[in-house]
Amino acid sequence: MTYSDLIARGQSASSASLPDLVSDPVRHQRLTITAQGLHFDFSRALLSEADFDALLTHAQEIGLEQARADLFSGKPINATEGRAVLHMALRQPGRDFFAKGEAISTAVRTGRAAATAFAHGVRDGSICATDGRPFKAIVHIGIGGSDLGPRLVHEALAPSAGSDIILRFAANIEPGELAAALAGLDPRETLILCVSKTFTTLETLENLKAARAWLQAAIGPDDSAHLVAISAAPERTKAAGFRPDRVFDFKEWVGGRFSLWSAVGLSCKIALGPDVIARMHAGAAAMDHLFETLPLAQNPVVIAGLIGWWNRTCLDFKSRAVIPYAKRLRLLPQFLQQLEMESNGKSVNLAGQRVSTSGPVVWGAEGTNAQHAFFQHLHQSPDVTPVEFIAIATDNEDAPARTRMTLANALAQAEALTHGKTRADVEATMRAAGADDASIAAIAPHRVFSGNRPSSFVLMDRLSPENFGAYLAFCEHRTFVEGKLWGVNSFDQWGVELGKVIASEIDADLQKGPSSHRDRASVALIEAIRSLRS
Amino acid sequence: MTYSDLIARGQSASSASLPDLVSDPVRHQRLTITAQGLHFDFSRALLSEADFDALLTHAQEIGLEQARADLFSGKPINATEGRAVLHMALRQPGRDFFAKGEAISTAVRTGRAAATAFAHGVRDGSICATDGRPFKAIVHIGIGGSDLGPRLVHEALAPSAGSDIILRFAANIEPGELAAALAGLDPRETLILCVSKTFTTLETLENLKAARAWLQAAIGPDDSAHLVAISAAPERTKAAGFRPDRVFDFKEWVGGRFSLWSAVGLSCKIALGPDVIARMHAGAAAMDHLFETLPLAQNPVVIAGLIGWWNRTCLDFKSRAVIPYAKRLRLLPQFLQQLEMESNGKSVNLAGQRVSTSGPVVWGAEGTNAQHAFFQHLHQSPDVTPVEFIAIATDNEDAPARTRMTLANALAQAEALTHGKTRADVEATMRAAGADDASIAAIAPHRVFSGNRPSSFVLMDRLSPENFGAYLAFCEHRTFVEGKLWGVNSFDQWGVELGKVIASEIDADLQKGPSSHRDRASVALIEAIRSLRS
Repeated sequence: MTYSDLIARGQSASSASLPDLVSDPVRHQRLTITAQGLHFDFSRALLSEADFDALLTHAQEIGLEQARADLFSGKPINATEGRAVLHMALRQPGRDFFAKGEAISTAVRTGRAAATAFAHGVRDGSICATDGRPFKAIVHIGIGGSDLGPRLVHEALAPSAGSDIILRFAANIEPGELAAALAGLDPRETLILCVSKTFTTLETLENLKAARAWLQAAIGPDDSAHLVAISAAPERTKAAGFRPDRVFDFKEWVGGRFSLWSAVGLSCKIALGPDVIARMHAGAAAMDHLFETLPLAQNPVVIAGLIGWWNRTCLDFKSRAVIPYAKRLRLLPQFLQQLEMESNGKSVNLAGQRVSTSGPVVWGAEGTNAQHAFFQHLHQSPDVTPVEFIAIATDNEDAPARTRMTLANALAQAEALTHGKTRADVEATMRAAGADDASIAAIAPHRVFSGNRPSSFVLMDRLSPENFGAYLAFCEHRTFVEGKLWGVNSFDQWGVELGKVIASEIDADLQKGPSSHRDRASVALIEAIRSLRS
Repeated sequence: MTYSDLIARGQSASSASLPDLVSDPVRHQRLTITAQGLHFDFSRALLSEADFDALLTHAQEIGLEQARADLFSGKPINATEGRAVLHMALRQPGRDFFAKGEAISTAVRTGRAAATAFAHGVRDGSICATDGRPFKAIVHIGIGGSDLGPRLVHEALAPSAGSDIILRFAANIEPGELAAALAGLDPRETLILCVSKTFTTLETLENLKAARAWLQAAIGPDDSAHLVAISAAPERTKAAGFRPDRVFDFKEWVGGRFSLWSAVGLSCKIALGPDVIARMHAGAAAMDHLFETLPLAQNPVVIAGLIGWWNRTCLDFKSRAVIPYAKRLRLLPQFLQQLEMESNGKSVNLAGQRVSTSGPVVWGAEGTNAQHAFFQHLHQSPDVTPVEFIAIATDNEDAPARTRMTLANALAQAEALTHGKTRADVEATMRAAGADDASIAAIAPHRVFSGNRPSSFVLMDRLSPENFGAYLAFCEHRTFVEGKLWGVNSFDQWGVELGKVIASEIDADLQKGPSSHRDRASVALIEAIRSLRS
């Protein structure tokens, strides 16, 4: 199964009839899987059973099974940084993992127990503020991978966890962000939790500085009882005045965008309770097990990854829309945007050769709101965007009719994208509504929907910590599968370096005037800014 | 200048050197414009001066100037609905506009005065709650175009307006959304403002029903003093129990996604004050005037529209990323996503013929956060995504260093996208840092940035109501210019109809079991949901 065979298959599939494909019962059975409280429906993918078989063969031929084994066995698959990738170890404390041959699970268990003990201590008041009162609020300071995961977890699970500890987040360097996070909180009962692997992240350190000024104005210069750091740079946290027993580390085999399972999730562990987080970990561990052990053809992670690759590379769809029909999952598009675009938005493969395609743009917003914003484009643009629907079968049961209507909308959009509406059907509808021939001739073309637009659907039984954890692990592993198909390293992010270097230069230029090597556009804007700010 | 000439130009431009283009002083001068507190820099577009001239010729040849005149003169340019498009009339009360020949501006002035009087009345307490107390909070219920605009305006301008009336929004049908909007509010001093043109929008009516139940539980069955409707369906609002003097209409020549200038903006007018909104309108009116009167080559709206079309159609870039480096503008990507994707995500031109390209996917998130999320992809994906940067030169002046760093980051990303970093530069950097040859050979390819990635930059002097209004009008008119270039009707949205019809069918199916014409995928999910919800 060569690459060009698959590209040729994609070209044929573009003209296949999605309604016909969906109607096939055997294909439907093969492309739907129920596991871990999740119902995966991949049957609205624009591929035939023969295409699916070809993809499975391709996956075998490129060594996906071995890659999966290498992942779990802790080989240094993050080759450009010489690191293993073992965030799974954090949610499988009962199993022994090895990073590049070295046993890590004893340290995992110790770290996990320390974080859990700390969370219990804050929750029961035995770990308390300078003046002895219990903490009522946590402000989590971090950005990117140190922010989006915990934010998503908190929004998704806080309503059911019923926590009474306030948890707020501050990421952006703009002062308004931290100000909003601190608004209404009492510094005397607020814990500041600062997440930065290197402890050099500009935004995070600026926010920490401002948060400490706010603390110290109320409690005096010794604010150490109110500070926690999650960092892999203990010398820097120590220099900043953090108590050693208030610093939780994370290891080099945990990438930022996979770090919510590590001590980066401590703020959620405190606010939601260690039991809720343990249940989320258990769900993720169960999905790890499925991914690791199921044959490729029955493996929801593998099928999803194959379809993601097929959509981008064989069907040439440049982006993917993620639409959670659940307000508590409204941050999911942003989370997956980071997870997938930072992992697979790469220009070269592991051998350093340029690739012609890699991961797509990932974007989206919560339904039903999105229906009133950009679904026009999804239904009628000449450009096809595969859509990923996520919905919750039982939720908000104090208002069951609304939940039902939400679900009806999600299902309806998937069906509408599949079938569209033909010119003949539009004309019949208009004629039945009393339109005359002239009006039908003028308007009907605008009301035609081409259909044949692929989507996938994940129905979650309910938004339990277990189901949510399983879904997150599914997304993480899919990213890995897709990365293997593109041949890229999904676990580095060299593409973020250049901007940082130039930002530091331009920050100096804004103070002193533009350096001689700035380009014309930058010079003009720097001068405009300097003039406006003088 | 034929279409195929322009496509051929695009193909050549793809291999032009963006750094060379940017360095040209004459080109820079032509592609940078300062107006209405906004500095537009289009010089990082991937087009030569000759390409720019070709685009200007094309715009003339397709009759852009006449189209612009037809827009302002109230011709029925929304041809599929037989309507004029005159949201500009709402912000230019001193000028007489005509919709399809009929004078509308007297009614505009009357409606505007009534809304302003109402806003003043609520603010000074003369319009008050059932028991005579002043309103302290407004809950704005609406979705899509009746939601995103007011939400954006409120976030952008509330910090400087210093309002003490709380304004919250509820769009989604999920009960959590309204519950969050009502949380902590006292129904006895809360005004519910319900926006629906047809007064049939499912989500909005469900939220209204729940909000009224909440009101009535506290104040008794007559809640009419606490209700305002913005609707073009007075018979329906009357039947729902709204007082006629509490219903503000909006006209057929105002599309939903352009409606924030109408009474749809009433909640902001109350919360921020009529003066702030009048200033925003004045800024928009000034941009209207520029757009209407400036020659194409000096017209920032036209240049932006030409480049938007060029990027999608001649360079084949499928999406556009919008990155506001300003937390108060964090909703801008969503707002523009709706404005552009609903306006120009169309399959046929005005003559009803299929188009090969129309508007791109529009997506994005606030900087600097986005740098830590998806900029990896923007810098290194084989797929190029043009980026639109928006930044504010003077802002948050209690923390000037942070503002400077924010600006430095925005400028740096634009420069990095332009120039990239060559293999030779990467190797030199690595060698200077002490890397050995083996490591350089292995890692350098991963640290190369191709550059040559286009962007645009809008620098706002400060986030005043005037500048913000001018920027919104700029975005609206650009959408119109792009729509004209694609030949589509930017003002209808037939593509949202089909899903609504099917949703209503499936809502019934979820109650009674799947109808016989549902497809296999829907049937299976309906049955799963029915089983889980039984």
